[in-house]
Order: sequence, then C-alpha cells, then structure tokens
Amino acid sequence: MKTYRIATIPGDGIGHEVMPEGMRVLEAAARRFGFTLTWDERDWSCERFHRTGQMMPENGLDEIAGHDAIYLGAVGYPGVPDHVSLWGLLIPIRRNFDQYANVRPVRLMPGVRSPLADRKPGDIDMLIVRENTEGEYSAVGGRENVGTPEERAVQQSIFTRKGVDRVLRYAFEAAGKRRSSVTSATKSNGIAITMPYWDERFAEMAAQYPGITTAQFHIDILAAHFVRNPQWFDVVVASNLFGDILSDLGPACTGTIAIAPSANINPERLHPSMFEPVHGSAPDIFGRNIANPIGQIWSGAMMLEHLGEPDAAAAIVAAIEAVLAEGPRTPDLHGSASTQEVGAAIAAAL
Amino acid sequence: MKTYRIATIPGDGIGHEVMPEGMRVLEAAARRFGFTLTWDERDWSCERFHRTGQMMPENGLDEIAGHDAIYLGAVGYPGVPDHVSLWGLLIPIRRNFDQYANVRPVRLMPGVRSPLADRKPGDIDMLIVRENTEGEYSAVGGRENVGTPEERAVQQSIFTRKGVDRVLRYAFEAAGKRRSSVTSATKSNGIAITMPYWDERFAEMAAQYPGITTAQFHIDILAAHFVRNPQWFDVVVASNLFGDILSDLGPACTGTIAIAPSANINPERLHPSMFEPVHGSAPDIFGRNIANPIGQIWSGAMMLEHLGEPDAAAAIVAAIEAVLAEGPRTPDLHGSASTQEVGAAIAAAL
Ligand SMILES: CC(C)[C@H](C(=O)O)[C@@H](O)C(=O)O
Ligand SMILES: CC(C)[C@H](C(=O)O)[C@@H](O)C(=O)O
Repeated sequence: MKTYRIATIPGDGIGHEVMPEGMRVLEAAARRFGFTLTWDERDWSCERFHRTGQMMPENGLDEIAGHDAIYLGAVGYPGVPDHVSLWGLLIPIRRNFDQYANVRPVRLMPGVRSPLADRKPGDIDMLIVRENTEGEYSAVGGRENVGTPEERAVQQSIFTRKGVDRVLRYAFEAAGKRRSSVTSATKSNGIAITMPYWDERFAEMAAQYPGITTAQFHIDILAAHFVRNPQWFDVVVASNLFGDILSDLGPACTGTIAIAPSANINPERLHPSMFEPVHGSAPDIFGRNIANPIGQIWSGAMMLEHLGEPDAAAAIVAAIEAVLAEGPRTPDLHGSASTQEVGAAIAAAL
Repeated sequence: MKTYRIATIPGDGIGHEVMPEGMRVLEAAARRFGFTLTWDERDWSCERFHRTGQMMPENGLDEIAGHDAIYLGAVGYPGVPDHVSLWGLLIPIRRNFDQYANVRPVRLMPGVRSPLADRKPGDIDMLIVRENTEGEYSAVGGRENVGTPEERAVQQSIFTRKGVDRVLRYAFEAAGKRRSSVTSATKSNGIAITMPYWDERFAEMAAQYPGITTAQFHIDILAAHFVRNPQWFDVVVASNLFGDILSDLGPACTGTIAIAPSANINPERLHPSMFEPVHGSAPDIFGRNIANPIGQIWSGAMMLEHLGEPDAAAAIVAAIEAVLAEGPRTPDLHGSASTQEVGAAIAAAL
C-alpha cells in the first residue's frame, strides 16, 4: 500500500481546530482509496515564537524537506506582528522549497450564497495561479533618515525571467486541462518598469501555446470585472501581490473565504509542496469550535491530487459539495454546526 | 462676478464626447449660481503624441500653471503604450502640481443597479483618498541581463514621511466632515518594509485625531470586504497602487465605473488641481455618442466644490441623482439615450 508522509503544521488559532478535521477526512479517503498517510506534526507557530523567539527551529526546513507534502493550518497571533510570523515561517517554506505556483481554485458552490446578485453554482469557476516566490514580496529595501522629516522607506520589487516564465508556464499548462483561457493581471501603466516586463514574458509564453486564448487586464479594472463579470475567467495568472488580492477577492465573490483552499506547488517535485486554507488564524473565533473546516479539507483534497490520488481528491470535493448543499453548516454559512460536525459529515459523505 | 479660468484637456476617445457635456452642465451651474467660467483647451493626447512624438509641449505645465483648475477627459489610444501616455501626461501633471490627494467618492446612486445582492442607494457611501505622487508608481528601477536567462526587472516603491503624512492628514480631515471614520489599506505582512512604515505613520496620525475612529486591513481582505461589507466604510485611505485598485473596485460594487468622478487635489492650492472621470478613453465605443457623461459631469461638480462653489456643486450632484433615477440613461445603464441627451437633461435639471 502506498504511504505518504505528511508534515502537519496546525499553526495558531483556528488552525488547531480545522487541522484535525482535515486529517479526519483525508484518513477516510485513504481508507476508501487504499493508501496510507503518516502524520508528523510540528508546533511551528506564533505561540512557539512567543515561547522561544523563533517561529520554527533553525534547521526546521531540513526536518521536513524529505516529506511528501506539508499540510498547514493557519499562522498569526495577536501581539506577533504579521511580518514577523510570515517571514519567519510561511514565506521561508514557500521560497526554500521553490513552491513557485500558488494555486487557488475559486468556485461558486451549491448551498453557498454569493454576495453578487443572480449568480448560481457553476457561474464562477476559476483557477488563480499566483507567483509565490518573488515580485513585490521582497526583502530588499530599508529606511533612511529615521526619525527626521526626511525619513523614507523604500522597497524593491524583483521580477526575474526565470521566476516569471515558470509560473506563466504553469498557468498555461493548467489552462490546457480546463477551459483553455489564461488572463494576466498587471498594472503596466502605473508600475511602468516591472509590469511591462511581465507583459512581455506573457506575450512570449502565449506564442508557445497557440491553443490557449489569452487576455490581459490592469489589476484595477480586473478587480472590477471579478465583481461584474466573474464568468469571464478561467485561469488567472498574476504576480505575488496581485495574485494575493485576487485570491481573496475571488472567494469573496463566491460567498466565503472560509472554504477557499490553496496549494503552494513545486511543480518539479524537487521539494515538498504545501497545502493550506486561504483564511487566517481568526483569533476572534478561536476556541468556540465554530470555524469552518472546509478550506482546510479542500486544501487536503488538493494535496491528494498532487500526491497522485486524483480519485480520492475528486471524492473529497464531491463530499464537500454534498455537505455544502445539504448541511450541516457552520455559523458563517448560516448553520449551527460545530467544526467537528462538519468534518464528520464530510468524512461520512465519503 | 467671480471668474474661474479652467484648462480643459479632452484627451482621447470618449474624452472628446463627454467633455462638452461636462462643460455644458458647468455653464448651466455658472448661470444659475452667478459666476463665470472661461475655458482654455489643450490638445494634449495620444493623438498629439502620434503627430508630434509628445503628449504635451515641453513647457506645457507652465502654460497651465496659472489656471484655477484643470478639467480632463480621458487619455489612451490603441497603439500608444499606456505607460508612455500616462507618464507623458497624467502623472507629470499629478506630480508637478503636487496633487497628492486623489479623491474618489463611491456612492450607490438611485436608478443604478448594484451587482451586489440586496444593496440599495445609501447603503454604500465612501470616499477613497489615494496617495497620488509617490509609492509604488516610481520611476526608479530598470532591467539587467537583457535577453539572457538571467534577465530581471526591478522597481522601487518609495514612501516618504512627507508624502505619507500629508495624504493621511487629508484623509483624517475629510473624515471629520463625514462620518468620522478612516480605514487604511496596507499589506504589511507581505510587503514588509514599506507597508509597516505606512502603518506606523497611520497610527501616529490617528493619535492626533482622537475624534476619528480608525481601522486597518490588509488589501487582500479589504478587497473582499468591499464586496461583502461595503457599508462598513467611510473614508478609505491607501497608497497610490492600493488606492487605484480600490477606486475601481468600489465603483464596480456600486454598479458602474462610468459615473465615478475623481479629483487630483493640491490641498495647499499652490498649484491647480485636476478633475477627471475614473473611466478611460474607451476606444471601443468612441464615435457612437453612447458614452456616459456622468463621470465627467460629477468630476466637474468636484471642481466647483474645490473652487469654492459648494452650492453649485451640490446642485449638480442633485441633478445627476434626479436624472439617474428618472432617465434619460445611456446604454451602459440600460437606457437608449445619447451622451448629449444625458448631458442636456442634467443641465436642464439644474
Ligand atoms: C491610467 C492610470 C495610470 C491611472 C492610475 O492608475 O493612476 C488610472 O487607472 C487612474 O486610476 O487614474
Ligand atoms: C499571510 C500573508 C503573507 C499571505 C500572503 O499574502 O501571501 C496570505 O494573505 C496568503 O494569501 O497566503
């Protein structure tokens, strides 16, 4: 029987509540589809930072470099600045393991009310492919004249041909398995140095995929189209920052960020990929067992897909759809079920 | 009788169609409220670039530096790259005249259908204040290793204390005249050098305005809230890029970008301010007289407000509301009126 070794990082807050439900559903899928999962938990978190001054141990990445995948809950904690927690954990994992494609399906699901008028399940079905290792999220820059009226902060955005091309290629390949359309988001009129570069690479890549239809929008008007014409989009590819924005905006248009999954993929499989819900650690609701576990569970389905268990992945997504349609539902979706009840229902639906 | 000297720049495309309607309505307001407008037109545009290689003459800014305001249509033209047209006209005007506050009201108006479910006029009423002279729109950067696999493009974002503080102050002052709430958009977890700097300046400014309620969101989740909870927001202040995105997304949530106005304000009045619709030159519909002139007209109302004619400004906004509610309407709002019919109706409603 095939065995996959998974590093789990529940993280902080509701990460602790949704992770067990993700594992429960994945275990159910393993039983049904005949493979084994072994879990290897790490306490890397803001909590740990609080205790030890570090989000993860010095050699943390080495510890999990040999695992088949990383399954993460959520990271963040009041009192630990976000840029500390993220640059101490999430971003090093994404970068050191070259998880350059951050992949986020956005679908309007049965049983979920969209805040957009007159949209029904099936109307919105896109895949956001976000560059995940460079771009606007750089560590290059600083402040000068600190404390004076002449104080300033500067930061570089860095776009490499290697970095841009590989994520574009991923997006075009993904489109080939979907509705064969790729939309690129830039802002080449305002950000007139790096963004035109992305546009050029996009045009070059498009020339290599004559079977794929392409479109390009400035990020401002593209955000507007997400609200007004979300049905236009299949694969949307964007830089680190623009992909981040679109992959919160997209799920908002489909009714809830709580169910949105994400995959941080190293397509060459030289390193483990990481799977995590789009939502955060939600300290405001932590401890009440009302967190929606579906983002975590759906991320688990993406993990199985990546590991080579597409049938198990599809079965989990179908089970999610069934439970969204019929209930039970957590309070964010106007139900009254607990995190555990929803997890159990999805496992049972498998 | 007071006389205001206005430099008009119709620009390209539908700029030519909506500008005369803006002027028609402003003339009607001038007659009713007892002041005079003189118009001084400039042909600065992509069309001019095509003919002469320059968007505007070398000494263009000097020519209009003494005017009371600048009234602009839209700039952009197929065949002239956006970054050429913008950095050759719009951005130099914004920067040289220190128009550091880009101000964009976002309101759900009567007669306009929102793409958001169950929203009615009055539910959405915010003012987006965008930093307009620095930040992510920088001219500092470049490419190296061009044409090789090691090619890269880098670009700086530059945030100065002066630049950040002055736009924050503008936002807090504006909130004092509205519902006394300011929301700041950053992305301090990902863009971890410049954005935390903005947050610090925001906290410092907030301390000076104890009567103003403040909130802060990362841009990704804020974009999501624009769709899910637009009623939360009064004044929203953001960097050049984030303000740009939010001020297209906001109008999209209120049904149409075609009616959205904007003001590029030099609050110290050392230089003329510029007033322009949020929409672009729309070459796809140019020439058919179906462009909606309301963005241009509403921008004109903002110009009168800035010039010290608040009654005339309010009367124009009321006339816009009346015509939106009763028609005539252009095709983008499901009517069949021409650009001119809508302009004439608003002038008549005055
Ligand atoms: C045309 C472009 C440079 C401009 C901007 O981003 O500033 C426009 O989108 C706007 O919002 O005024
Ligand atoms: C937490 C933050 C750094 C992160 C990001 O922007 O990458 C998050 O918003 C995400 O989308 O995964």
